[in-house]
Parts: sequence; structure tokens; C-alpha cells
Amino acid sequence: MTTAKAPIGPVAVIDVGGTDTKTGLVRPDGSLTDTETVPTPHRPDIVAGVLDLGARHVQRMYTRHRDLVGSALVVPGIVDDEAQVAVLASNMGWDRVPFAAMLAERTGMPAALGHDVATAGLAEVTYGAATGARDAAVIVVGTGIAAALFSGGHAIRGGGFAGEIGHSPLVPDGEPCVCGGRGCLEAIASAGAIARRYTARSGTAVPGAREVLAAARGGDATARAVWSEATDALALAVAQVAAVLAPQVVVIGGGLSRAGDALLSPVRRRLEAILTVQRRPDLRLSTLGTSAGLVGAGVLARRAAGAVPRPQAVAPSAPAGTSEVHR
Amino acid sequence: MTTAKAPIGPVAVIDVGGTDTKTGLVRPDGSLTDTETVPTPHRPDIVAGVLDLGARHVQRMYTRHRDLVGSALVVPGIVDDEAQVAVLASNMGWDRVPFAAMLAERTGMPAALGHDVATAGLAEVTYGAATGARDAAVIVVGTGIAAALFSGGHAIRGGGFAGEIGHSPLVPDGEPCVCGGRGCLEAIASAGAIARRYTARSGTAVPGAREVLAAARGGDATARAVWSEATDALALAVAQVAAVLAPQVVVIGGGLSRAGDALLSPVRRRLEAILTVQRRPDLRLSTLGTSAGLVGAGVLARRAAGAVPRPQAVAPSAPAGTSEVHR
Repeated sequence: MTTAKAPIGPVAVIDVGGTDTKTGLVRPDGSLTDTETVPTPHRPDIVAGVLDLGARHVQRMYTRHRDLVGSALVVPGIVDDEAQVAVLASNMGWDRVPFAAMLAERTGMPAALGHDVATAGLAEVTYGAATGARDAAVIVVGTGIAAALFSGGHAIRGGGFAGEIGHSPLVPDGEPCVCGGRGCLEAIASAGAIARRYTARSGTAVPGAREVLAAARGGDATARAVWSEATDALALAVAQVAAVLAPQVVVIGGGLSRAGDALLSPVRRRLEAILTVQRRPDLRLSTLGTSAGLVGAGVLARRAAGAVPRPQAVAPSAPAGTSEVHR
Repeated sequence: MTTAKAPIGPVAVIDVGGTDTKTGLVRPDGSLTDTETVPTPHRPDIVAGVLDLGARHVQRMYTRHRDLVGSALVVPGIVDDEAQVAVLASNMGWDRVPFAAMLAERTGMPAALGHDVATAGLAEVTYGAATGARDAAVIVVGTGIAAALFSGGHAIRGGGFAGEIGHSPLVPDGEPCVCGGRGCLEAIASAGAIARRYTARSGTAVPGAREVLAAARGGDATARAVWSEATDALALAVAQVAAVLAPQVVVIGGGLSRAGDALLSPVRRRLEAILTVQRRPDLRLSTLGTSAGLVGAGVLARRAAGAVPRPQAVAPSAPAGTSEVHR
């Protein structure tokens, strides 16, 4: 594909999370500036609130950057890339919202919609830890766990349902998970699960996984057990992804990746012990961290603005139409 | 893509297995005729033997069908689709054999090479149980277990390493597997494992899974346990594939699929109990059975002959070059 005289300019980006919403500006070289974090406007109407927040952000960026060419909004839940509709998100309470069209109408310039984790993965394969890998998995470990998956340079989207490795049943009849299932990866290895499991076993309430890691480093046996059960579970999940998709690179991102080598080393060691005939993935930490969603949104916004071709290497696979988004 | 005045004619197909090799002719409408099964020529030289067998088959088909336009050979192991090279296969003993180029040279007409399971899956999404599904998994359960995976109409190949769900670690520290790992799906749910596990537990040697199923139907408690452990393991593996890839359709093929409803019903029931937030795949039995490899080879052969466009909906993803086929 070619882009004759494509417009080149920065784009405004909005990454809507369950608690906070991040905003920023992405320059044509992929660099992120003008970042800000505000509470996600859940009340009185989250759809109107998100649109107002997004439109105001685009307007503000336009006053600063008159060459602004478009915007993109990324959200959690199920996103239909082709229809550019946020199909649903249990913790956001929306149902089939055409955010891209609504934001474009409000701002008078091209706008795109993306899925938070898929978009973070797009950033990692475009500018981050998986740059150049055609077969890649980007696993985002935070409050929950989900993955952005790429095969032959194509995003694996499954109509918006792919990559839910947090709810892949890892241990039959294992611990109950928020999804209603049992033994899910997320119930053992998410940052939330690590804190919750340590609190339950030790009787000492901790706010997050960071405190569990600190306790483990201090020699606390319960903290060590909880941490190593989490890293073992992550390694098993990576091994399963390796058997199914054979990624060249597996990137671990999200909040838990801030643990750095304390996360990467045990997962890598356990993975080496499990893998046999599988292609061995190169396991890496995210280089974009929690900015990945905004950086990836920049790619989507520039595509929507026609500023970049929709490259084969990063084009999301077209889902088979919204009528087929079923579960 | 368009094919102006593309040649239309039948193709000769060869499906090389560990024990037997099947040959046949595929007509432009996908129908399979002229089938024959012969022992795979392991000695004295399997590469020369396979090429001789293939070239003789093409020659014989040409004498019967003067409008023959090409041929395709499918093999087990690791296949580099882009380079058209059989990279390796532990039970065949070859190493980087450019079968397509060699067969084309021997026969004087276009020839293609494919991977056995990936090609069987291509047949199922083109003519069989998964026709029209853009996100699909075709699980072949026989002596071993492997899957052909499709996302957004693209084959997921992982440089030839994808789809090895038989060696996805299902049960940490579970039963040993031939691959050197433990708790692999294949060690519990393959036809071979079902026979082996029944023999070990009952003290009664059985030649195959068919006899275990017959014993289970006759009320044998050991046979029932072994069979239901196998179907539970398959359901867990399908649930994991559902979480990762979100296929619309999952097809079960291979020898074990001849068990029909005795296989499908318990897997479906268990799957329904496991799945929560995942897109629920439509679970179906293969409609092409053990002919799927030959039928899929027909698609590859016609592509090589230029008789059909390489459709986006079934184009194998291009691996990143042979130098990146590492493990």
C-alpha cells in the first residue's frame, strides 16, 4: 500500500481505564507528550462523560498543536475493530457504543477506537519490546491479565474475544475467579490476586503486589510462596501460548512488569523447564510500560487520519461483522 | 486478487504419514477420487522414496487425466510454508528438504508442499465442517494431537511451530509424555494414550482407543474412567484455545473423531461447564475425516498451479524466513 502526500501531524490519544483515564499527544515518530491522568467519569453517564473528556482533550491538543490530524480512544472490554464499536465492558456498563463515530462527530476530525490491551500490544510490536516480531504475544498483567496476540504480522482478535488468557482455565477445579470459573490464571497471577492471596494466607492485609514482593525479598515465606505460585502460573500460561501460537517474542507488560527481573527471571526459569518441542519464545519486559495504550492509540489515530498506510504487519484482522460477535 | 483465464484442471495429491501414505486426485470442485494407500517408503532413503512415490503417482494421474495442472505433497513435522521446505520431522528423519521444488522438477509441473495438520485444517475451512468460519480451530486427534488454527481467515503457522496443542502442558508435573514433558494433552487424550492408559490400569492389552470405547460402552469402569479423563482433557484444551483465540468453530478430526457422539457429547458438556466469559465455539466433528489432508493438498496444488487465487481467507501467513525457524 502507498500513501501519496499523506497528512503528517500529531494525534490526540485517550486511554480509558476502569479507574483512571490517561490522555496525551503522539507525534508522528511515535513519541508521547502532553500526558495527563484524570479519574474516569463513571457518573452520571459514562458514555457521555468519556465523550466529553475525549472531545475536550482533542480540543485542548488542537489549541496547542494546530497540525493535529485526528484522535483515538482505547477502552477495555469487547471491541469490534471493524465496526469501531465498544460492544460491552462489564465494569464500564456500556453496550454497543460507536465511540469512534461519536468522537469524530464531536471533534470534526478523524477518530479511531481500539481495545486497551490489543492497542498496547500494537504499540509494543510497532515501537516497543516486540518491534519486528511477526509472531508475538504481549501479556498485560495488572488488576487482570489479558494478551495481545500477533501471528504473521496480523493481530489475532477473535471478534474482540481473543487474548483472554487471564480466564484460560489453568487448574481444573482450582481457586474461584471473578469470571465465575475456577483455576483461572488471573485468580493466581494478577497483581490483585497476589495481594489477595497473601492477605488471606498471612492474615496481614496488603494493598498490592508490590508489598508482597517486598515481603518476599525480606524473607517472608508466605510472600515467597504466593509470588512463586504466581510466576509458575504465568510460566505455564506462556508455555501454553507457545504451544498454540509459537510466538517469537513474548512481552510481559502492565503494572506487575515494574517488578522487573523479580518477575522475569522466575518465569523464564520455569518456562525453560516446561518447554520441550515448542518454539522457544524470547521473553522480554515491556519497554513502553503503562504508556503502551496511549502510544498504540497514536498508531490507530494516524491510520484513521490516513497519515499512515494500514500496514500488513500491524493490521488488525477484520472480524466477521458485528452480527457474529457472539459468546 | 484476480485470475484471468486461470488454468482449471485436476491435481494429484500425496499425504505422507508416519506409517502409510495416501494418494489421490482432487477435482476443481474439491472432490477427491483415485485414492490409494501404500506403506510410507522409510527405507532405504525416505526422501528419495517419497519423491519416487510422489512422481510416480503424478505420472499415473497424468496418464488418466491429461488436464492435470499440478500436485501437492503434505508431510508431518515442521514445514516452512514460505520456503516450501520440510524443516524436520523426528519420526521421518529428514532435515530441510525442499520437497516442492524437487517434486516440480521431477514431474515438470507446479508442485506445492504443506504440513499435514495445517493442510487438513485448510480443507475443513474450505470445504468441510468449518466452511466460512474466519476464526477456527481444527484439532486432529489420532496417534498424536495437533491443531490447525485460523484467525481472521489467516492460518496461524508460527513458522511451522504453531498448533502443537498436543504438547501444551495441561497438568503441571502430570504424566510423562513422549516429547519429554509432563502432563501434555497428548499423553492423556490421544488415541494412543487412551489405549496405553487402559492397558496399564486394567492389565488387559488393547490395540487401540476403539476397543477402550467398546469396553466403556459395555460398562467397564476402568475404560469409562480412561475415556472420560480423555474427553475432560480435550475439553480443557478446547477451553484454553477458546480463551486465547476465540474461534467461532472448533472441529475435531483425526482417527478418534470416528467415535462420533461418544467423543463430541462429553467434550461439549464439559466445555460448557468450564467456559465463562469466552466466546463459545461451535464444536463440530470433521466432515472430511482422514481424507482432509488430501483434500487440503488439492487447494495447495491448485494455488501452486495458479488455478485459483491465493485467497485472503485461507492464505497461510508468511513465516519470517527460514533463518527464524528456531526453537
